[in-house]
Amino acid sequence: MAEQPELRSLKEGDLFAGFLLAQEALFKTSAKGSEYLELKLADASGDLRGFLWDLRAIEGDMDLVVADAFVRVKGQVSLYNGRTQLRLDKVRFAADEEIGDFSRFFPTSRRPREAMQAELDQLVAGIGDPWIRRLLEMLFVEDPLLRAAFAKAPAAKSLHHVCLGGLMEHTLSVAAMADRACAHYQEMNRDLVLAGVLLHDLGKTAELAYQRSFTYSDAGNLLGHIAMEADWISQAVAQIPDFPEQLRLMILHIVLSHHGRLEYGSPVLPKTPEALLVHYLDDLDGKLEAMFRAIREDAGQGSWTPFSRTLERMFYKPRWPAIP
Amino acid sequence: MAEQPELRSLKEGDLFAGFLLAQEALFKTSAKGSEYLELKLADASGDLRGFLWDLRAIEGDMDLVVADAFVRVKGQVSLYNGRTQLRLDKVRFAADEEIGDFSRFFPTSRRPREAMQAELDQLVAGIGDPWIRRLLEMLFVEDPLLRAAFAKAPAAKSLHHVCLGGLMEHTLSVAAMADRACAHYQEMNRDLVLAGVLLHDLGKTAELAYQRSFTYSDAGNLLGHIAMEADWISQAVAQIPDFPEQLRLMILHIVLSHHGRLEYGSPVLPKTPEALLVHYLDDLDGKLEAMFRAIREDAGQGSWTPFSRTLERMFYKPRWPAIP
Amino acid sequence: MAEQPELRSLKEGDLFAGFLLAQEALFKTSAKGSEYLELKLADASGDLRGFLWDLRAIEGDMDLVVADAFVRVKGQVSLYNGRTQLRLDKVRFAADEEIGDFSRFFPTSRRPREAMQAELDQLVAGIGDPWIRRLLEMLFVEDPLLRAAFAKAPAAKSLHHVCLGGLMEHTLSVAAMADRACAHYQEMNRDLVLAGVLLHDLGKTAELAYQRSFTYSDAGNLLGHIAMEADWISQAVAQIPDFPEQLRLMILHIVLSHHGRLEYGSPVLPKTPEALLVHYLDDLDGKLEAMFRAIREDAGQGSWTPFSRTLERMFYKPRWPAIP
Amino acid sequence: MAEQPELRSLKEGDLFAGFLLAQEALFKTSAKGSEYLELKLADASGDLRGFLWDLRAIEGDMDLVVADAFVRVKGQVSLYNGRTQLRLDKVRFAADEEIGDFSRFFPTSRRPREAMQAELDQLVAGIGDPWIRRLLEMLFVEDPLLRAAFAKAPAAKSLHHVCLGGLMEHTLSVAAMADRACAHYQEMNRDLVLAGVLLHDLGKTAELAYQRSFTYSDAGNLLGHIAMEADWISQAVAQIPDFPEQLRLMILHIVLSHHGRLEYGSPVLPKTPEALLVHYLDDLDGKLEAMFRAIREDAGQGSWTPFSRTLERMFYKPRWPAIP
Amino acid sequence: MAEQPELRSLKEGDLFAGFLLAQEALFKTSAKGSEYLELKLADASGDLRGFLWDLRAIEGDMDLVVADAFVRVKGQVSLYNGRTQLRLDKVRFAADEEIGDFSRFFPTSRRPREAMQAELDQLVAGIGDPWIRRLLEMLFVEDPLLRAAFAKAPAAKSLHHVCLGGLMEHTLSVAAMADRACAHYQEMNRDLVLAGVLLHDLGKTAELAYQRSFTYSDAGNLLGHIAMEADWISQAVAQIPDFPEQLRLMILHIVLSHHGRLEYGSPVLPKTPEALLVHYLDDLDGKLEAMFRAIREDAGQGSWTPFSRTLERMFYKPRWPAIP
Amino acid sequence: MAEQPELRSLKEGDLFAGFLLAQEALFKTSAKGSEYLELKLADASGDLRGFLWDLRAIEGDMDLVVADAFVRVKGQVSLYNGRTQLRLDKVRFAADEEIGDFSRFFPTSRRPREAMQAELDQLVAGIGDPWIRRLLEMLFVEDPLLRAAFAKAPAAKSLHHVCLGGLMEHTLSVAAMADRACAHYQEMNRDLVLAGVLLHDLGKTAELAYQRSFTYSDAGNLLGHIAMEADWISQAVAQIPDFPEQLRLMILHIVLSHHGRLEYGSPVLPKTPEALLVHYLDDLDGKLEAMFRAIREDAGQGSWTPFSRTLERMFYKPRWPAIP
Repeated sequence: MAEQPELRSLKEGDLFAGFLLAQEALFKTSAKGSEYLELKLADASGDLRGFLWDLRAIEGDMDLVVADAFVRVKGQVSLYNGRTQLRLDKVRFAADEEIGDFSRFFPTSRRPREAMQAELDQLVAGIGDPWIRRLLEMLFVEDPLLRAAFAKAPAAKSLHHVCLGGLMEHTLSVAAMADRACAHYQEMNRDLVLAGVLLHDLGKTAELAYQRSFTYSDAGNLLGHIAMEADWISQAVAQIPDFPEQLRLMILHIVLSHHGRLEYGSPVLPKTPEALLVHYLDDLDGKLEAMFRAIREDAGQGSWTPFSRTLERMFYKPRWPAIP
Repeated sequence: MAEQPELRSLKEGDLFAGFLLAQEALFKTSAKGSEYLELKLADASGDLRGFLWDLRAIEGDMDLVVADAFVRVKGQVSLYNGRTQLRLDKVRFAADEEIGDFSRFFPTSRRPREAMQAELDQLVAGIGDPWIRRLLEMLFVEDPLLRAAFAKAPAAKSLHHVCLGGLMEHTLSVAAMADRACAHYQEMNRDLVLAGVLLHDLGKTAELAYQRSFTYSDAGNLLGHIAMEADWISQAVAQIPDFPEQLRLMILHIVLSHHGRLEYGSPVLPKTPEALLVHYLDDLDGKLEAMFRAIREDAGQGSWTPFSRTLERMFYKPRWPAIP
Repeated sequence: MAEQPELRSLKEGDLFAGFLLAQEALFKTSAKGSEYLELKLADASGDLRGFLWDLRAIEGDMDLVVADAFVRVKGQVSLYNGRTQLRLDKVRFAADEEIGDFSRFFPTSRRPREAMQAELDQLVAGIGDPWIRRLLEMLFVEDPLLRAAFAKAPAAKSLHHVCLGGLMEHTLSVAAMADRACAHYQEMNRDLVLAGVLLHDLGKTAELAYQRSFTYSDAGNLLGHIAMEADWISQAVAQIPDFPEQLRLMILHIVLSHHGRLEYGSPVLPKTPEALLVHYLDDLDGKLEAMFRAIREDAGQGSWTPFSRTLERMFYKPRWPAIP
Repeated sequence: MAEQPELRSLKEGDLFAGFLLAQEALFKTSAKGSEYLELKLADASGDLRGFLWDLRAIEGDMDLVVADAFVRVKGQVSLYNGRTQLRLDKVRFAADEEIGDFSRFFPTSRRPREAMQAELDQLVAGIGDPWIRRLLEMLFVEDPLLRAAFAKAPAAKSLHHVCLGGLMEHTLSVAAMADRACAHYQEMNRDLVLAGVLLHDLGKTAELAYQRSFTYSDAGNLLGHIAMEADWISQAVAQIPDFPEQLRLMILHIVLSHHGRLEYGSPVLPKTPEALLVHYLDDLDGKLEAMFRAIREDAGQGSWTPFSRTLERMFYKPRWPAIP
Repeated sequence: MAEQPELRSLKEGDLFAGFLLAQEALFKTSAKGSEYLELKLADASGDLRGFLWDLRAIEGDMDLVVADAFVRVKGQVSLYNGRTQLRLDKVRFAADEEIGDFSRFFPTSRRPREAMQAELDQLVAGIGDPWIRRLLEMLFVEDPLLRAAFAKAPAAKSLHHVCLGGLMEHTLSVAAMADRACAHYQEMNRDLVLAGVLLHDLGKTAELAYQRSFTYSDAGNLLGHIAMEADWISQAVAQIPDFPEQLRLMILHIVLSHHGRLEYGSPVLPKTPEALLVHYLDDLDGKLEAMFRAIREDAGQGSWTPFSRTLERMFYKPRWPAIP
Repeated sequence: MAEQPELRSLKEGDLFAGFLLAQEALFKTSAKGSEYLELKLADASGDLRGFLWDLRAIEGDMDLVVADAFVRVKGQVSLYNGRTQLRLDKVRFAADEEIGDFSRFFPTSRRPREAMQAELDQLVAGIGDPWIRRLLEMLFVEDPLLRAAFAKAPAAKSLHHVCLGGLMEHTLSVAAMADRACAHYQEMNRDLVLAGVLLHDLGKTAELAYQRSFTYSDAGNLLGHIAMEADWISQAVAQIPDFPEQLRLMILHIVLSHHGRLEYGSPVLPKTPEALLVHYLDDLDGKLEAMFRAIREDAGQGSWTPFSRTLERMFYKPRWPAIP
């Protein structure tokens, strides 16, 4: 795929030609009875609306221009209520093969993947307990498919770290906080805590589908990520001869209980200090990321972000001392 | 262990000598300052209180006479407020080896184990779908330890079917109702429903400990029976070559969702007709058993059973037409 | 009313002339400032949108063209985003007298009314307990208005069995399941259970209005169907000399408690086995019908139905084994 | 029954002989092995504990001395931890015929019954709306059994106004407040509000049993007072020719909705101003009475009453300005 | 500002020129690609939609025409679906200085401000307890800014008494009811109750912003009105030498607990009779006002108002006897 | 007060004479009719039961021997069911003046007060923001009464850190964790977070009474610690000229919202990152302390602590790797 400008960089009057992901595709009818096409177009840098007023300008099969398909478009940038949009001259369906690396069409973690991967490997290598280290190596180092998936998956569908690499970014952030917490609460077993942190959302690599949009897979909807990762851990443990049963229970307990409450999808409550700690730090990290991002990204006037349905509140944007 | 009368059959004035399970053992002090021993003694037919007024009559090591130990006692039956009790002359600790079959000291299902086992085997053999039948055979027929445990476990700690064999009795009752329901709701996949019914509480064989009392095992408290049975199913499926992934998801989904609500410990809600049906029939059977038993066993006057904390209500005892 | 094609059978290009129910009627203004009329038009087979771009084509009094009125329309079928719609040439209000049988404009139960009525009569006739049978005869056989209303009413406004005859269809389905359940749980009083089933939603004949749309009547909103049917039962019982008071209480108890929880509108919890059973089977039947219907009717791609706000989940559409 | 001193008036050393209600009767065994009888004895003025150390002093059939029976006792008052108790010399069962007026053994409203009855009659006579007045006359004036029951019943089992006449006292208090509220909120229909107030707890005459203790009747447990009074109102209205249907709905709506929330046992929410007002004033009156009584009756030190399980809080006892 | 007609008085064909508050201002694009301006325009009497089809008719800086700004408009009234709207010929931004009294653009309490102010002063002057009267004088009489703010503030953002002066209107209504309630419940300390009533929503003068629209201020969102008024009371009390500590606690307790439940934002539950009374009367008054207003203002057909999201129900509009 | 052995150090047969706090004092009667006195006696090291079988051995006024009084006792240690108790020979009331330092009778924080005080002073001195430092100095350094109270108060009545100095210990633990968290989440304003941490429970110095037992003061019950500390902060800020209003709001917001949910007593939800962080770290620290303490102090057999009613679960006691 040839070079093309990022959507975020477009300014009024710019011409644009390139591939984009059609997150929405709606054929609408105007009051005059004429039909037009409205698209929500996205690349990794952002998204905007595109309008094609004359449907005859669609090349090829019109029925292929649907939500979650890639399209090739040509048009000019205009400004509407302060937001950029595209007045399109041409639209055509684009096969996956033309696209190459899908990741150019999704938001991606601000941290480079290599740096995160190295940090993860170091964490695993630094585990002192041989049983725990062995288990983590099997899942995070020696299984190439899982290793790749863990590096690519988002952390959630809509709540926090909704980007490629978001799962790893979130996991590493919780791990770093957990490291500090274990230095403070010295009765904690740091190896056990880190195992819980690294494993707690591993199942999201299969719960979330993110080929063309961030959504739940069938397995994700039917089983949930907690059941899936518990299964994987159990199968990995079964391949480690003489793995201590008590340790197996403790690790699985952290994973199963990390949502903290039954009504949030954990079948058991945290009953060990390590499980309680992992639950709090995971929850805190996700909510803080959502809050900081909402504050950072809100371009609107006034002191408050839009209402967050997840956290059921607006956030206060001003910082002290004021950021110049 | 020699023959001894059942506790339920004892009458005022009877002499009793034999082994009993001490469910409680309390050393108390009287206002005069003398110490005595109060025991809650049980066999499979029921329980009563025993009093030893002179601690010097304890043979052997007094510190071994604790809750959940077996004891050998000798004494005479008296009546107190209409209930039988034992005035003890002798008490001594009894080692497990003296006892033989522990099941003589627990309530046991009213249905004979052999009849239930045969009914279960027939159910499995009658499954038409080869994949499902294979999975059930592995777990219920070919694994001798699991087969034995399933035949012996209670269905719950305190709610319903609290007796040896209770898990199998409950499971078969739900299966028979499920069979009738599938005849009525003909869009149901009967094989899938029956698989869900047979598997839904299998993990209770490891969740509940019942060597000396009905309680939760460590694994039960840390993981819960749903996570354990999901693990076992997953491992069994992994040994069946080419087991269809979609079917695996559907079966695991029924098991994971069978408590019906997140706050009742299911990490996902029932999302298929089969999962919804298994949830309702399981819930109904347990509650009905608890209600019928409470009505049957309540010897008190008045129209109402004692308040059931589980169901948060009293039950109305009179039946229509009146039972003569 | 003359013959006219069913809406469901229309194809692009077809001409249509006939009577339809206007479920919605909105006068809208286009950006050009011209006004047009958008209708949601329905018959028993389905519904579609109709557009009249020139309001002068309305015959007669324009103010009569409102939601829940019948209209006579003429126009041609077009296709928009894969759905049929009507481009209208003529619209006029139609008085009720022109319409004849309203039921042609509502969805109707898939089971023929006569078959259902016969099944109901047989159920009543088969009740062994003379008091219960007498009560049911008074309400379901001898009261012609109630008998007719019961045969016609929907079972709910939007949840399940939302069609003419839906109440009877739902009631008979629960009754058939109850019959099977009583064969399994032999301590149940089958006559009492069936009385509870037949009576449990009788008040919906007055709670729901369904002359032009399915909605709540004033009495339905102010009292609810449970209070209304309890009133009717009480008045019928009062006319049966020497009706046993205990039986009256037991029947009313099933009816009052059948929603199972106070927060679902039952003023008392089920406290007899019969009441518990009726609650579960009623709840199960409604939810299963909603789930099966959603799966059957969803024409969309993907494995999941749209989110059901009633059950707060999506349903998984694939069946095992796959339906060819 | 001859005169006998009130329990509340007894002082240490007094001799007592008379009839009392045995609210509890327990045969206990002492550490020495001797049996004794412990009674909770009550008359309308209060209760105390009685002890009979020698069971041979029981006259007649010992098995008749049970909870909720009347007994004739003889003994002497002693003081224990600042509370009076009775050391008994004689105890015998007393048949109901010996007792005469049971009300001497229950707490009774502080307001004289005649004054309350007159106030009620005046309220009914003062209703301007002829339909409403007619309905109230039928239930409160012309039905002698209901009139008597309404004058005698308690308002609740344990929450507030737990005394003979408590229902009428509570009803009149709410009515007086409602009168004031209608003077303030002039859009209210005062007649309708008063009808709602007078009728809202009428069913408690049958919900609560209070022959020997305050408890729920079978009908009360199975149907609840709301369903019972709705039934009675409906049957009374049926006997008034041409009673306006809308008014019937409005009155029944107030009664059915007066608990204010579904989870408190109302099958519908208040949807008219009159229904909303009755709900608030009823709720307020009950809670205030419970709070004032708890403050008044608490003899303990400190600023706080014992924890009220009903209101889930302690109450602050000091009053401003301080009561000397 | 010159005289101009009230929006409510406009009829089809009228010409209008004057200042209005733009509650919404949206630049939209038509299907033809032309842009137009849609405004929601308001004065104290009501609001309507205005459309400017040619943006060149905007005088001065177009970017100043935003929501919550004042505008000067010229246009003609037309009718659309039975509602008036303005087809605009001219629109320009208007600076605050041109406007004068902002209150002409907000709904205002039906009660005249002077009458309410006099009633409030009389209430304060009539307080018998010198400590309480002193406190109320400091806040309601001697602090001119607070006195003015209290007279002007609305009682809520959207629930009830949403108009200038609404806070005072609501407060006085509760006070009048409280006066009647204290006459009925004679154990109440009337002075304490009235203090609680007058102070309970005082913080809304700072919680709600109402310069251009009714919304929450930053302080309101961050602290809430309860914390703010508690702070003010505490600071006022600190300036009254020897103010009794117990009285301070009692007054603050009423204010802190007046929402009645923790989940409604009160950090403590009402634990004195006075606090319980204030909570009930405040809650009742707000809900009744909302209900009466919804019934009064609903011009629609049918017996029911639109669904109230606040009260989670529709209200029944018919009154008994019918209002002619 | 002279030296006396700690209760925890007593062994069977020891003689004891000294002052103790009577946490409970009950006069009981034995079956023989003789009265005796049972005391729960405590010093800072623990508590045990004491029995005085002959009431004539009480010196001085018997009515002064009540719960929460100090007593001087003499007796001998015996063993009962493995627990020590005191068989008393003499008991007399002891006036407060005899006792001297009350803290000898309460559990005390494991951390020395001086070390904690120094750490606190250092934290305050290290605050970079001059406004925040000034505020903290006023409250924690310059107000000698508050400084002393903060050093002495417990952190809670029964949940966690229930000991003298517990409030400071808990506060410093949260502050140390907050320091680490701010190093990780670098967008946080560390000074603001630390201000929130130090202030969040300051009001507990007045909410909790701990002269003779840990309980709530009247002010604590009526206002709660959140309202009290918000008041103090507000009054301190009022004395700092030109304190920025926005900073005042942000600090008060952290304090008001730190319980995290309305139903836990916070009148507002956390709406800034700093407020969210303080809530999580406070909650985590309290729960972890409770869990670690329960595990540490449980002397019982088995893997599980007793059920914690606060956290609604048992805790798993085994640690990994096993503590030898």
